[in-house]
Parts: sequence; C-alpha cells; structure tokens
Amino acid sequence: MGLERVGIVGLGLIGGSIGLDLQKLGYEVYGLVNRSQTLEQAKKRNLAQFISLDPQIISNCSLIILALPLSQLIKPTTDLIHALPPNAVITDVGSVKTPVITTWKELHPKFIGSHPMAGTTDSGVNAGKKNLFQNRPWIATPDRTTDPEALEVVYKLALALGSNWITADAQLHDQAVALISHLPVFISAALLKAVNRQEDTALLELTKSIASSGFADTTRVGGGNPELGLAMAETNTASLLEALHTYNSSITELTAMIHSKQWEALYKELKSTQLNRPDFISN
Amino acid sequence: MGLERVGIVGLGLIGGSIGLDLQKLGYEVYGLVNRSQTLEQAKKRNLAQFISLDPQIISNCSLIILALPLSQLIKPTTDLIHALPPNAVITDVGSVKTPVITTWKELHPKFIGSHPMAGTTDSGVNAGKKNLFQNRPWIATPDRTTDPEALEVVYKLALALGSNWITADAQLHDQAVALISHLPVFISAALLKAVNRQEDTALLELTKSIASSGFADTTRVGGGNPELGLAMAETNTASLLEALHTYNSSITELTAMIHSKQWEALYKELKSTQLNRPDFISN
Repeated sequence: MGLERVGIVGLGLIGGSIGLDLQKLGYEVYGLVNRSQTLEQAKKRNLAQFISLDPQIISNCSLIILALPLSQLIKPTTDLIHALPPNAVITDVGSVKTPVITTWKELHPKFIGSHPMAGTTDSGVNAGKKNLFQNRPWIATPDRTTDPEALEVVYKLALALGSNWITADAQLHDQAVALISHLPVFISAALLKAVNRQEDTALLELTKSIASSGFADTTRVGGGNPELGLAMAETNTASLLEALHTYNSSITELTAMIHSKQWEALYKELKSTQLNRPDFISN
Repeated sequence: MGLERVGIVGLGLIGGSIGLDLQKLGYEVYGLVNRSQTLEQAKKRNLAQFISLDPQIISNCSLIILALPLSQLIKPTTDLIHALPPNAVITDVGSVKTPVITTWKELHPKFIGSHPMAGTTDSGVNAGKKNLFQNRPWIATPDRTTDPEALEVVYKLALALGSNWITADAQLHDQAVALISHLPVFISAALLKAVNRQEDTALLELTKSIASSGFADTTRVGGGNPELGLAMAETNTASLLEALHTYNSSITELTAMIHSKQWEALYKELKSTQLNRPDFISN
C-alpha cells in the first residue's frame, strides 16, 4: 500500500478533518503543528496519533499532506523543507495551484498539487470534523512532468476520504476557482460595501431592519474570513482580475437593459440564469 | 374590533399564508381567486372559509388584503375596484410601494400601502403555510394624508400575524428594498451570466464540476423566479438603477485595489464587510 504512515502539516479545518478520517480508516497519522497551544488542543481532539512541534515527526511518513494556508505553501519554512523525506509523496490543500506548484516543483520530486473543495466557514484546531470530504470534489493538477506513481498515491488518498477525483490543468483550475469561488467573495463584499456606504442614516437603518434571507445568502462569502479573501486575491490575481472583468461586462449589460427598459431582453436573461444555475449546484 | 371579516384577493404564498393564520385566530376569511383550478385547490387546502371566483365574495369585508403580484397591484381590474366596499380598509403585499400607492390613492380613501418581508422561494396556491410572518418585519408606508384609523387596522393585522411593525416613508422604503432585496437579485444573476458566458468549454465544464456551497448561496436569488426579478426592475426602476450605480462604484474600487496590489487596503475592506454584515442578518 505505501500509505500506512501519513504526515499532516497543520491541523486546522482541512488537516484536522483528514486526520480524523484517516485514523478511522486504519492509518497511522503524524501531525506537525507550529504552536504549543495548538499542540495541546490537537492532542485533546485526537486529530492524529502522534503530534509534535518538531518537524522530525513526519520524517518516516510515506505520504505528507501540507494542510497550510496559501501564504505558507508559497513560502514554506526551511525547517519544513528539510524535514520532508525525499521519497515520500507530498501534496497540499491550497485552492490556488499555479504558484504552489511553481514553488514546490523546485523543492521536491514527488510533489503533487491537489486540494479538496470542502466547506471553510470555521477554521483552526477546533474546526476539523469527520466525513468533511465525502462526495466533495478533490482536484489534482498534474502535468507531463508529474510522477505517475506519486499521483496514484494522492488519488488513493482522495478515494479513501470519499471524495470525487478530478484532474485539471493547473492554470485552467485557477481560472475556474477564480470564477466560482474567488469572484463570489468580491461581488458579495462589494454588495455589503455598497449598502454600508449610504450616507443617509435613515436609509441605512431601514436596510438593517428589513434585510432578509436573500441578503443573508448573497453576502455570506463576502462577510467571511478577510485573511482568506486576501489570500485569494494575492495568489490568484491574474485569474481573479479576468473574472472580475467578465463579471463587469455582465452587470453592465443587465444595467443597460434596465436603464433602457428592455424588459423582454431582461426577462430572457433572468430565465436563462434560472435554467443554468442547477448545472452548478448539483455537487 | 372591526376585523372579523377579512377578504384576501389572491391565495398564493402570501395570501394563502395569511388565510391560514387568520382562520386559526378566529377570523372569518373570504378569498377571491381568478382561476377555477386555483379555486378547487384553495378549497382543498382550506386557505379561507369562503372562496369564490366572483368579486362579490369580498363585498361584506371590513379589511381586504390585496395579495396580488406587483403588475396587478399597479393595474388592478375594474371588477376588483368595483367590488371593494368604500368603508373597508384596503392594504396590499407588494414589495415596491411608490407606484402601488400612486395607483391606489386615486382609487380608495382607506388604502394603506404595506407588505411583509417573508420568504418567497415557493409560489402559487400550494405555497401558503402557517406562521410565515412570525417575527418577520411588516412595513407600512403612511404619509400625512393617510387615514389613522385605517392604519391602526393594518397595524393590528400585522401584530395578530406575529410580525414586527415598521413604518417608513414610501420612497425611502423603495430605496431600501432596492439595496437589500432587488440589487442582490441582479448582482447574483450577473455572476451566473459571467460564469456561463465562458467560451472555453473545458473551463465551463470544470466550473460546473467544482462549484461549491459558496457559489450556490451567492447565486440563489439570481437563479430565482424571472417574473419576480422582472417585476422588481419594472416597478422600482429608479431606485434599482441608483443601487446598481452605488454597487458599481464599490466593485470598481475593490477591483482597483486588486489591480494595483493594495493588499493592506483590500484587507481593511474585507475586515469591514465581515464586521458590518451581522447588523443586517439578525432579522
């Protein structure tokens, strides 16, 4: 099998959830964390059988999952790099792939860029939970230089966690997440910003007292963790700007229809969005 | 009391829900519908004690609720107008108030513009359900010409249904719903339009397979009933265009920050939307 000893670097929502599931499946899980407070709590929650602040904890693992924030994936510490065994398979969970792969291609011969698409409302050592990846997509972005055996190891990991395996070109992947995951954060934040910039205080107070479920849903991702939103913009800048450009054309077209009272054309657009949405939400 | 006989014109989600609650509270409810199929189903569901296709059904009511779509509120039929007793109090449930009030000011001395803010995912004669208005805002838009006794009757209705009573200037109200209810529909529809306009089919297919809960939430109102979206644009055009204009400034500013890599400023914006959102979603 070659999967018996799995190392997880970072035991937050994603790392902790992987740790819980893999132990249940019979693997020996080794967790590396970077703060003593996290260490205590991770031990209490049994997120791995062995947990340490010392990078050497992962030195006998055959598969290591880097469950770190994007910033740390792109600029890994020297200690971490040195602790990774050269013949282990390494993968990550970063939602932007091109900059992560660019970094790791130079650092490790068996690095496979991948990540699960799974809920991220909570974060930190208390966020990890069982079955988070069940029926969720797990995307890997191999290219022609990728070690096929290493890819197979990550494929088996995703399958063991109950995920649906998808492979894609890294750049295409980053464009896709820009459109369906990063763009929504900024259009949703812009809605909150627009409502809040009202200088008319009576109007602002009224919006606060009557805002309903539609507003709550549309603003959920825009009112989320600012570190995460910033990381999306910093690491996926080009694809996000392209997505914003496309979005700008769409909202400008709809606005023009309303301005010139082209009700039939507007109805057609709304009918089309109603018909197309189910293609995106069956996951 | 003066509320014993209540007429409801239209037994869809809102009208049907009012009918169910008022009967439970001991009122005699008279329902007017406009199709024989609706009549049968409304009777089967007991949405009112007396239901008819004949406008005369409401002629002995002291309070009549016009639970009709905005288009029919703005252009009511002559039959309906003639059936309304001159000393009954009349109110409506339309989410845009200025054009409805403009129409009805000329037609009835005791018309009170009002509406509940309540869920509208389902529609039609099968959508009505009990306790829909419990703890939801019910907004009335009186002005200095409004009959205070008529307003009191609608206030008692809202309270009986468990709603939180709010009064506001009609134009301010229309600006507020443009921002927190109508604008979200169009920015959400524009997101679906932007993702769907991708000509790269590989990219489009990938977005469909990895779209997750964030995309589902942000697009919910934009993928809703197109008739409702169109009615918002047609009846609240000026306020919606103003809201779109403000929104355009907000998204343009965020895009500029990303373009020029002003990460600190962007973080501040995202932190501010995170802090401000709870003010809008406690309803």
